[in-house]
Amino acid sequence: MKNLITLLLLLPTLSFSQHEEMIKKIYDETLTDGHVYENLRVLCKDIGNRLSGSPEAAAAVEYTRQLMESYGFDTVYLQPVMVPHWVRGKKEVVRAINSEKHGTFEMNALALGNSVGTGSDGILAEVIEVSGIDEVNELGKKVEGKIVFYNGEMDPTIINTFGAYGGAVIQRSSGASEAAKFGAKAIIIRSVTNRQDDIPHTGSLRYKPLINQIPAVAISTNDADKLSQVLKEQKLKVYIETHCKQLPDVLSYNVIGELRGSEFPDEIIAVGGHLDSWDVGEGAHDDGAGCMQAIEAVRLFKALGITPKRTLRAVMWMNEENGLRGGREYARVAKEKNEKHIAALESDSGGFQPLGFSMSGTDEQKDQVKKWRDYFTPYRVWDFTQNGGGADIGPLSPQGTLLIGLRPSTQRYFIYHHTPADVFEVVDQRELELGAASMGAMMYLLDQEGLK
Amino acid sequence: MKNLITLLLLLPTLSFSQHEEMIKKIYDETLTDGHVYENLRVLCKDIGNRLSGSPEAAAAVEYTRQLMESYGFDTVYLQPVMVPHWVRGKKEVVRAINSEKHGTFEMNALALGNSVGTGSDGILAEVIEVSGIDEVNELGKKVEGKIVFYNGEMDPTIINTFGAYGGAVIQRSSGASEAAKFGAKAIIIRSVTNRQDDIPHTGSLRYKPLINQIPAVAISTNDADKLSQVLKEQKLKVYIETHCKQLPDVLSYNVIGELRGSEFPDEIIAVGGHLDSWDVGEGAHDDGAGCMQAIEAVRLFKALGITPKRTLRAVMWMNEENGLRGGREYARVAKEKNEKHIAALESDSGGFQPLGFSMSGTDEQKDQVKKWRDYFTPYRVWDFTQNGGGADIGPLSPQGTLLIGLRPSTQRYFIYHHTPADVFEVVDQRELELGAASMGAMMYLLDQEGLK
Repeated sequence: MKNLITLLLLLPTLSFSQHEEMIKKIYDETLTDGHVYENLRVLCKDIGNRLSGSPEAAAAVEYTRQLMESYGFDTVYLQPVMVPHWVRGKKEVVRAINSEKHGTFEMNALALGNSVGTGSDGILAEVIEVSGIDEVNELGKKVEGKIVFYNGEMDPTIINTFGAYGGAVIQRSSGASEAAKFGAKAIIIRSVTNRQDDIPHTGSLRYKPLINQIPAVAISTNDADKLSQVLKEQKLKVYIETHCKQLPDVLSYNVIGELRGSEFPDEIIAVGGHLDSWDVGEGAHDDGAGCMQAIEAVRLFKALGITPKRTLRAVMWMNEENGLRGGREYARVAKEKNEKHIAALESDSGGFQPLGFSMSGTDEQKDQVKKWRDYFTPYRVWDFTQNGGGADIGPLSPQGTLLIGLRPSTQRYFIYHHTPADVFEVVDQRELELGAASMGAMMYLLDQEGLK
Repeated sequence: MKNLITLLLLLPTLSFSQHEEMIKKIYDETLTDGHVYENLRVLCKDIGNRLSGSPEAAAAVEYTRQLMESYGFDTVYLQPVMVPHWVRGKKEVVRAINSEKHGTFEMNALALGNSVGTGSDGILAEVIEVSGIDEVNELGKKVEGKIVFYNGEMDPTIINTFGAYGGAVIQRSSGASEAAKFGAKAIIIRSVTNRQDDIPHTGSLRYKPLINQIPAVAISTNDADKLSQVLKEQKLKVYIETHCKQLPDVLSYNVIGELRGSEFPDEIIAVGGHLDSWDVGEGAHDDGAGCMQAIEAVRLFKALGITPKRTLRAVMWMNEENGLRGGREYARVAKEKNEKHIAALESDSGGFQPLGFSMSGTDEQKDQVKKWRDYFTPYRVWDFTQNGGGADIGPLSPQGTLLIGLRPSTQRYFIYHHTPADVFEVVDQRELELGAASMGAMMYLLDQEGLK
């Protein structure tokens, strides 16, 4: 059988039905003998969360290196990259002081990634609520000496929740510097999620140059509602204590596993996810799922005895969460070595049921891939209309690489995103497998057909 | 605004963009101020599971009656129907006796619905494993005096898990009589699920007339694998004790809430789910979700001030799980009263993200609905290709009614189906809401456009 498949693959072009048959084998293999779910279990349960620079991130590098070697990939290697090393330190305190109705109460909080800490002295100040950055700019000097509470919500009417996230996340990424420029002492943000619960969501902020760096924390949506209610009734002081800090950069790695192409070895097709995660939960959906799916997508070629025409690479990018150093370094090295990436796929939207692929590239490239849609509709993967690729593959764009993002269902992603709740148990095995097989099938078509 | 909407709706035909706008309002209302999730919480948490004939089923009847009255539906009434009253009784025992490797061990088990019990004496007999009914027929008298263990699995390569369920469920529904006709004493089945875990799945069986009724239990997939492994190594006796029994039929009700049509009141469009559930878990996905979505679909018309042209009915059918008496009685009464149901929608595939609608009707009817697909694709509801409606609406088919089934993602359904794990917490709010809004939008189009 293996010989027959190899023979078929040596023919110059294959018919629709031959591709169709091979794609069914790809899905069947993943759904019956797939490794992706068990591999994710090991990453989540044995290693756990793995922020850039942490010992667990180093363990994840070694685990995925060994895993790809165990599958007999032609080459498995580490690509060095210096990464930021932010640590959370002792548990955060965010405490409302002497409210009339609730007395002094604690809020469920997480410091934002990259944030400076308050240190042991903490910060005690009056809180002023705003709906977003525009309101801070209107208030100007009125926020001086205060803690600014950004209470902007994700818009529930946007069906693709990533769109709603995009609208709300700016208070997390830019809120600190925007408040600091008017003399605010710290910021609290409403967690960027569409779920009403007690779980705080971390995520990175970026300080603007030349502006005072002030501490920033996220509180749960339930706490945000409570705080907002209290502020409608009275003035309130909040005490914040965080012990996070930025340490010197650390040497880390992108992990790369390669199957060498038999006909066009210089044409590279990369598939990957980011290996780092936030330092809470287990980074299961974000993005252990994508990493394990990428390895599975390449493993499928070995398991089914498909000799790729082009060079396939599974890439575990390091440091997507708070720096994107891995993605940038990968693209820099590719350019330096004059490598030709015809396409790069990323899965970084969770291990949910795949519904489509998004793309960023020329119209010609995109049209070619859109013609393959019929191969995917039997697997309920139908949406080829969205734009975009993925954060880690973005830096390849100037090299003319077609960027492709796996697009799973987005409805549950922001329940877990950047929280202690993003654990192995909230990933569904079949949904994860369908995503891996979809990436494998896309790799297969890119490999067989190439891109004009 | 309400007046403007009413005015628009009085125009004889509305343009695509006017419908598009109203459908956006329907989705927006559900996603921002929807009641469906909270209503499901009450049904699951305050009432709980509700097998036909149980006090909880009576509570669910009263709850949904009150709920629809609270929304000001024009008419809310109960339609009497006699239902079976099966009770599980004391916890099942399924115990392997004196195995060489594991000694005597218990298995996680649930009696199958409608099954007779063993009583306190239990049944102790040698176990013989089969892959399905065909094998029982081959074995014939060799199963006499034994417990037949059906270990057929759901096919993981079938993408729509309902297809795989259909292939495997026959051992549950017919396995007992097929084994009994050759003198088997009892049957054990592998739970009909695609998940490997410790949770047993119940569900109904049907005894064939004139064949000895023997006890039937389902064990978890982990236990099925363990039992199968032991049987490869040795002969084994298993002890089964169940206390389930069929009591006399009980008076129960379909619950019906109606908005009277302003232009064509004699044309009825029904939307519903089944109110009964199995007697374990909370019947959250099966089918509390569908019931609460149906009520929400009609509530949306009130909330948005849409006066329906046709008569809309939310129907909570009773006894889908072990008799279908409610669905049959509803259709019988409709025929008796000469009612004209132009369409009936059912949601009975769980409260997961909606991906499409299936249909059963004439090609003309189906083609008309398929033309509305573009209204739904912005909400990721795209698959209008599948056939079928729903169990409870099936009996309306001979009356020329177009049957429509909401088709959500099927990947997670059989994790929870008929188990203690089917609880409120495993339903996602947004996925549930999107399903309710999709049903509301479909009702809206059926109401506005009618069916030729």
